[in-house]
Amino acid sequence: MKMLPVLLFFLLVTLVATTQATNGAISHQIHLLRPQTGSGGRHVPGISCLSWRLGVETHNIVGWTTVPAVCEGYVGHYMLGNQYRQDSRAVTNEALLYAKSLNLTKDGKNMWVFDIDETTLSNLPYYSHHGFGVEVYNSTSFDAWVLEGTAPALPESLKLYNKLLALGIKVAFITGRGISQRSVTEINLKYVGYHTWEKLVLKNSSYSGNTSAVYKSSERKELEKSGYRIIGNIGDQWSDLLGTNVGDRTFKLPDPMYYIS
Amino acid sequence: MKMLPVLLFFLLVTLVATTQATNGAISHQIHLLRPQTGSGGRHVPGISCLSWRLGVETHNIVGWTTVPAVCEGYVGHYMLGNQYRQDSRAVTNEALLYAKSLNLTKDGKNMWVFDIDETTLSNLPYYSHHGFGVEVYNSTSFDAWVLEGTAPALPESLKLYNKLLALGIKVAFITGRGISQRSVTEINLKYVGYHTWEKLVLKNSSYSGNTSAVYKSSERKELEKSGYRIIGNIGDQWSDLLGTNVGDRTFKLPDPMYYIS
Repeated sequence: MKMLPVLLFFLLVTLVATTQATNGAISHQIHLLRPQTGSGGRHVPGISCLSWRLGVETHNIVGWTTVPAVCEGYVGHYMLGNQYRQDSRAVTNEALLYAKSLNLTKDGKNMWVFDIDETTLSNLPYYSHHGFGVEVYNSTSFDAWVLEGTAPALPESLKLYNKLLALGIKVAFITGRGISQRSVTEINLKYVGYHTWEKLVLKNSSYSGNTSAVYKSSERKELEKSGYRIIGNIGDQWSDLLGTNVGDRTFKLPDPMYYIS
Repeated sequence: MKMLPVLLFFLLVTLVATTQATNGAISHQIHLLRPQTGSGGRHVPGISCLSWRLGVETHNIVGWTTVPAVCEGYVGHYMLGNQYRQDSRAVTNEALLYAKSLNLTKDGKNMWVFDIDETTLSNLPYYSHHGFGVEVYNSTSFDAWVLEGTAPALPESLKLYNKLLALGIKVAFITGRGISQRSVTEINLKYVGYHTWEKLVLKNSSYSGNTSAVYKSSERKELEKSGYRIIGNIGDQWSDLLGTNVGDRTFKLPDPMYYIS
């Protein structure tokens, strides 16, 4: 025990030295004030995983295949820690505030579109055993996981779903899952608390070769042709939210694990 | 000096206790693995400033007037620290990679649109003395700052600007600054290294009452009518990048200090 304070002191000295080294990586040309300790976030030599994730979430970094290997730990900790959940909650809170602010026509035609994977259901149990997106996507093992039908709900999305239903808004799921996965998807959705929906749209083989953005735009257009008004649209991929017929407002949930165009 | 190790020990105990309290704030319903220490990021009771910032950057949180008071320290440290600069660099690196990947027609009609404030020039010296966005926007004091003509360049943007010019791409600045600020803006731009441009578009009084998105869309349309191809568009506000004629690809720089619709 006598050594503990001494160890702590050396720990602090090391931390200060590390912080200074990190601060030195970029000179502070645009402001002369010194940054306060702790402002910098985690720095990974050569690449800032925080910056990479922000770039992904803001649609600056597109078309990527795998998470940078150096960011596996960072993404894993993010996904399993509080921040992913808090970030998700900030989005769904905002979505609910928006929905509540609307003066909705009570004709049963107001619709909210949900994506499924990493929006309605979480595949984190799968990805936690596959490098959190560092490994190249393997459709065989991923499909095997989907067929288990045990994906948990993303808790924040389930809460939003229930509150939207209570406001009299209809829900449509539009997913990149293929039509052969309809049954297991229905079972999985109901098992974790999504008990009802107006439409569950799965990707028909006629869309093969098209991007998700094209497929989803086309299916949203069909919904609008049927007389629905898409008042909101939530997904973890920008391809859920870009294109045509995107809805009156869109909400981007975090997902630093994979990219779908 | 004898008290230092003891103080450090209590500091550590406090840190550990805080971390545990933070981890307890959201239960880990979607995955049973325990998050590793350090994954959570900074937690502010009642609101996560990290989540707020991500929500702003991803265009989930819109129409806000001021930075939440509780996030003043967080935003200030972010802006003055390495992370803002690293996040900016991740965006401009991506923009440059994109520009270099293009097979450009050499007819002098390829154009890149830059916003000015918090994109080309940084008003951080001003905002560092006005609560980093916590204070309500004061046009009198901000205009006085602009008229000094001493805003530094955002270093990452200046680097991008120079490299785009070297690729033979023309630059247009489209800014929310009014036409009465043309002269000081030109002087300021040149003073910090932006020596040349094809167009510098300032906001004409005919746009008063219109959003920035409407004004900028209209001015980009004019550029395209003149025969320019907008191959890229960079700004710190989503209103720089949404609307019509947005360009072949858009890049969103970070700005957690203010929101312009």
